[in-house]
Amino acid sequence: MGNASETEHRIREAAFRALVKHGYADLSLTDIGNELGQNPSIIYHYYDSKDDLLFSMLETFVDIFVDGRGDRPITDPEQELREMVDHVLQTEDKNDILPDSSTDMRTAISRMFVELWTHAIWDDDFRRETTEIELRLKEIFTKTIRAGIERDQFRPVNPERTADHILFLLKQGIYTRVTTNRDDATERVHSIIDELIDDL
Amino acid sequence: MGNASETEHRIREAAFRALVKHGYADLSLTDIGNELGQNPSIIYHYYDSKDDLLFSMLETFVDIFVDGRGDRPITDPEQELREMVDHVLQTEDKNDILPDSSTDMRTAISRMFVELWTHAIWDDDFRRETTEIELRLKEIFTKTIRAGIERDQFRPVNPERTADHILFLLKQGIYTRVTTNRDDATERVHSIIDELIDDL
Repeated sequence: MGNASETEHRIREAAFRALVKHGYADLSLTDIGNELGQNPSIIYHYYDSKDDLLFSMLETFVDIFVDGRGDRPITDPEQELREMVDHVLQTEDKNDILPDSSTDMRTAISRMFVELWTHAIWDDDFRRETTEIELRLKEIFTKTIRAGIERDQFRPVNPERTADHILFLLKQGIYTRVTTNRDDATERVHSIIDELIDDL
Repeated sequence: MGNASETEHRIREAAFRALVKHGYADLSLTDIGNELGQNPSIIYHYYDSKDDLLFSMLETFVDIFVDGRGDRPITDPEQELREMVDHVLQTEDKNDILPDSSTDMRTAISRMFVELWTHAIWDDDFRRETTEIELRLKEIFTKTIRAGIERDQFRPVNPERTADHILFLLKQGIYTRVTTNRDDATERVHSIIDELIDDL
């Protein structure tokens, strides 16, 4: 890993910690600089703007969520579908962006994800970004389901529609967990998706 | 309708217009007063705080969404389930809080709903409120599905689980529509839920 990407990594970590403390609305480059222990101007060597930095965090989290699956050949569609669901809804022990992935930290990541995503309501640039991520996730699920149908592992459902169904439930599980006190939200979503995959 | 509730209604309308213009983070009582054409201090005659006013808006929207269904006896569970889904996902011509319910206005209502709901990430009071609304909606769906099973209109599914499934999809349809450029989000969710109800 080169020096530049190490610094970018440190900046994203600092921005994440600042975001968890201050929330999106109040987040400033000064806060990020404080977390980084450096003059915030360094951020502009790597990112065009605060939004550019936040976009890059969204993308990093999506990469973690899908675990680079978009590029790999599919060998066991059902198993890979289930692994992606597990991967998004919980509880992975290792995590690219943050060494400490305790429950609190995972909650913080989910909160940040929803916070950034929701900012797309008011910001066209963010909305282009969330749309791209949405379609990227959908495409990965669609490809996996299509592969399962081709190998007779799944019955001949509409792959895009089933991909949407799983994606909507996954996102909503995270959303409901961080916006309500329903602690059973991700567990409930997990069992609904499991049943949906059992039925494929 | 008494004078007090008329004024409350006007305040909520003004707050809604201000929220659509300014977003949650920048919303001030002055903005609401400007929309109202009155000194903002009048708001404190009816609401304890800005948050109290916003809570009451959330509740008003939920009342519109569920259309007072919580209290009414259930006569045709399947039809009532489908009507609630239609009611949340679209396209009602009349609307209690706002006389003008054009597509733009419905989009604005959905945006506001998500904006307020997402504020629960950082605010415990809001989260208590969203949790209560979540469980209220879930209970209405659960009762309706249970009634359908008792009348042999539906097969013997787990009513709570099916209620969650529909509720998660409904919320996510609205969320995806306002946070991405996927214009097919609500339509797609609608057809997935229709299929789910067909299968009951």
